Amino acid sequence: MNKKEIPTKIYLREDEMPKNWYNMRADMKEKHPPFLHPGTLKPCTAEDLYPVFCKSLVEQELDQETTLIPIPEGILDFYKMYRPSPLVRAYCLEKALGTPAEIYYKFEGNNTSGSHKLNSAVPQVYYAKEEGLTSLTTETGAGQWGTALSMACAFYGINLTVYMVKVSSEQKPYRKAVMETYGAKVIPSPSDTTRVGKKILEANPTTGGSLGCAISEAIETAVTTDKCRYVLGSVLDHVILHQSIIGQECKIALDKYGVKPDIIIGCAGGGSNLAGLIAPFIGEKIKGKSNTRFIAVEPASCPSLTRGKYAYDFGDTGKMTPLVKMYTLGNGFMPSANHAGGLRYHGMSPILSKLYDDGYMEAKAYEQTAVFEAAVKFARTEGILPAPESSHAIKAAMDEALECKKTGEKKVILFGLSGTGYFDLSAYMAYNKKTMTDYIPTDADLEQGFASIPRIPGIND
Amino acid sequence: MNKKEIPTKIYLREDEMPKNWYNMRADMKEKHPPFLHPGTLKPCTAEDLYPVFCKSLVEQELDQETTLIPIPEGILDFYKMYRPSPLVRAYCLEKALGTPAEIYYKFEGNNTSGSHKLNSAVPQVYYAKEEGLTSLTTETGAGQWGTALSMACAFYGINLTVYMVKVSSEQKPYRKAVMETYGAKVIPSPSDTTRVGKKILEANPTTGGSLGCAISEAIETAVTTDKCRYVLGSVLDHVILHQSIIGQECKIALDKYGVKPDIIIGCAGGGSNLAGLIAPFIGEKIKGKSNTRFIAVEPASCPSLTRGKYAYDFGDTGKMTPLVKMYTLGNGFMPSANHAGGLRYHGMSPILSKLYDDGYMEAKAYEQTAVFEAAVKFARTEGILPAPESSHAIKAAMDEALECKKTGEKKVILFGLSGTGYFDLSAYMAYNKKTMTDYIPTDADLEQGFASIPRIPGIND
Repeated sequence: MNKKEIPTKIYLREDEMPKNWYNMRADMKEKHPPFLHPGTLKPCTAEDLYPVFCKSLVEQELDQETTLIPIPEGILDFYKMYRPSPLVRAYCLEKALGTPAEIYYKFEGNNTSGSHKLNSAVPQVYYAKEEGLTSLTTETGAGQWGTALSMACAFYGINLTVYMVKVSSEQKPYRKAVMETYGAKVIPSPSDTTRVGKKILEANPTTGGSLGCAISEAIETAVTTDKCRYVLGSVLDHVILHQSIIGQECKIALDKYGVKPDIIIGCAGGGSNLAGLIAPFIGEKIKGKSNTRFIAVEPASCPSLTRGKYAYDFGDTGKMTPLVKMYTLGNGFMPSANHAGGLRYHGMSPILSKLYDDGYMEAKAYEQTAVFEAAVKFARTEGILPAPESSHAIKAAMDEALECKKTGEKKVILFGLSGTGYFDLSAYMAYNKKTMTDYIPTDADLEQGFASIPRIPGIND
Repeated sequence: MNKKEIPTKIYLREDEMPKNWYNMRADMKEKHPPFLHPGTLKPCTAEDLYPVFCKSLVEQELDQETTLIPIPEGILDFYKMYRPSPLVRAYCLEKALGTPAEIYYKFEGNNTSGSHKLNSAVPQVYYAKEEGLTSLTTETGAGQWGTALSMACAFYGINLTVYMVKVSSEQKPYRKAVMETYGAKVIPSPSDTTRVGKKILEANPTTGGSLGCAISEAIETAVTTDKCRYVLGSVLDHVILHQSIIGQECKIALDKYGVKPDIIIGCAGGGSNLAGLIAPFIGEKIKGKSNTRFIAVEPASCPSLTRGKYAYDFGDTGKMTPLVKMYTLGNGFMPSANHAGGLRYHGMSPILSKLYDDGYMEAKAYEQTAVFEAAVKFARTEGILPAPESSHAIKAAMDEALECKKTGEKKVILFGLSGTGYFDLSAYMAYNKKTMTDYIPTDADLEQGFASIPRIPGIND
């Protein structure tokens, strides 16, 4: 193929930007199994979800038929302030590796939240405003999602309460400061503002909290407050729908230059970044129009795809959510304390889980020191300090490029650089000082987690 | 004028990017007075400067005649990884202010150094490598310059020693961590690695250090180490030459849409960001082709243009540099301890000082709480958390836009958003908690600073 000369960075013009989200479920031959109501074990209806989530988001969550969902003008106005994100040809990295492969990355870190999370925060808050809600609640661990959401809430004029895992809020006071600058109320969790929080504090007054507890507090506050709902930043289908903007921009940009990726790589925690990146490309694969390989990369310390079970499980440790069919380590699984950065969720997006189970996608896991080694090499070569999460994709892309060096193949590798590491410097410090360690859970560790998966005859066999 | 519809963000295509730096001195009717050797009081020659600075940079520093200086390919390769920077039409801010003015900003914060500093770090390190040097030294206070330089040194393969003001290295461990991740050796200053450092430590073992002391240590190390030179991130003419890339990209982008700015605004500490932004526009004004107003914005607590003297002064508190004719508060001036963020240099770029003295540019000063108020409004409206430095320009731009609201004028306002505030969150925390205070130096405070300006008959009269 006679490719046009490809610039280092490809930016779409504003008039080339996608006007719709792409709902890949509509093109999937088999849909993923529905959420189940934990009481009745029947598929969740919209009515089951309305008390917790915004109406429009519930509709998007349950819509497995509409292929293209228009992005409202009011959302495009915000998207235009920080999108399109650049698609970068990693010429310098290719040279440093001495690979014949072409490496591209889609960089989602050029916004104050520092990651792709803003792509879903914006629509979630927009719809809340449209529906006449006045406030939202959420939980945050490391703080990327809380930051993205506080930015969107400031823009649209919605009050936001963020339950931040107490130990994180103490370790990351600057993340808290960003959210507060955007007007969010940040409450270290567990707190005495909810019944569930008080109960946990009574039982264990010195606990540092957990994501599971913060979720429970956020949901309780949402359902007990007038004109308030709960919002979530990953895993769910509507989040992945919003993130399809990443892959669509990528595809339009690559198509302009006649480039077809042979391999697409992304890190996967809850799965929203990877699913968004691959959405339109996997659509082509499902239709038999491409042979692209898709690789999900996860930490060896939290290996939901590579070592988990495909089963119905709760989305939270508090067992308050519907049952979700997904690859899971069990809702009781906790990654080892030495694990730095995100990608610590016990489960995986039901869409990605289904695609993986159906053989459309591969998965691999890396230990964190190898990931940070790749991160530092990337930073010194391409100039961007990557998030630890995103660095899993960097490591896998480098390995594929080095494989091409051995075989002489000129493969086209695309990976998702989902965010920056500016708020993860304590992890980089540990790596620089060589105090960072690796941990791979033993089979016995995993069995402990699996034990928390509910045993339901006829459902989880 | 029939303007094309203007997108929210204007990115130049790679083939539209400037291939030359613009040397505005070549177009100035009167050049600024030369540096003077502090011993002989004669104009500095290239030979005077070679022991301290790279040869190519000395040549650029002293070249007041060549209008366009080609940017070498090896520098363009790095520039392409993070440039062009976006020129943003601030539609959302215009709406929030209810102004008829058109507001644009050139955003230089989309790189890991978080600011425009990288634009000069890249060429400075490139030339050092070209000249066969193996290491560089510099000083850093808040850490932006040190980060930018460490990124460039990692890329080109040059060893870097950064003397970081001790109190800053303790308060900003993450900035230190970024530099170390890029392979720089960061030494808290004063240190026992230099004669001057040891002397200061002997006299005052518990000192937190100062920029003046860090400069002295960096210069001493450069001149006593084989194949090593010292580099500086602002003030000097060659730095401003490199920063002209900002203004040139702006002008090309605005010209595409037929937009002529009525007012251009930038914050000014040493002056490199503002000078780079205005370079091609002030060239037009000098040639009588435009009536654009240029406004330098500085902190009321460090008011070198608005309350300083135009005199020959030393560039450092240690009085080791050549004498520079500039607006200065005196090399002994120290901004009050409650001053947050940068813009704390006692002097001002000799180019900007001359332009200001010749009436081509205005200056105004703001107190910091007003600046942070503007910063937070901007963050909540345009989505970007700005650096405290850049927020001085935001405040001035907002004031001009509100003036347009009163008069009904549709002025075109362009300002420089030189960086992000991700590493300045302790200042935002102080603002959020309302513990931030203002301080305007009294005339007596300023007189103390002025007393440190050398009195030299026939030179400083």
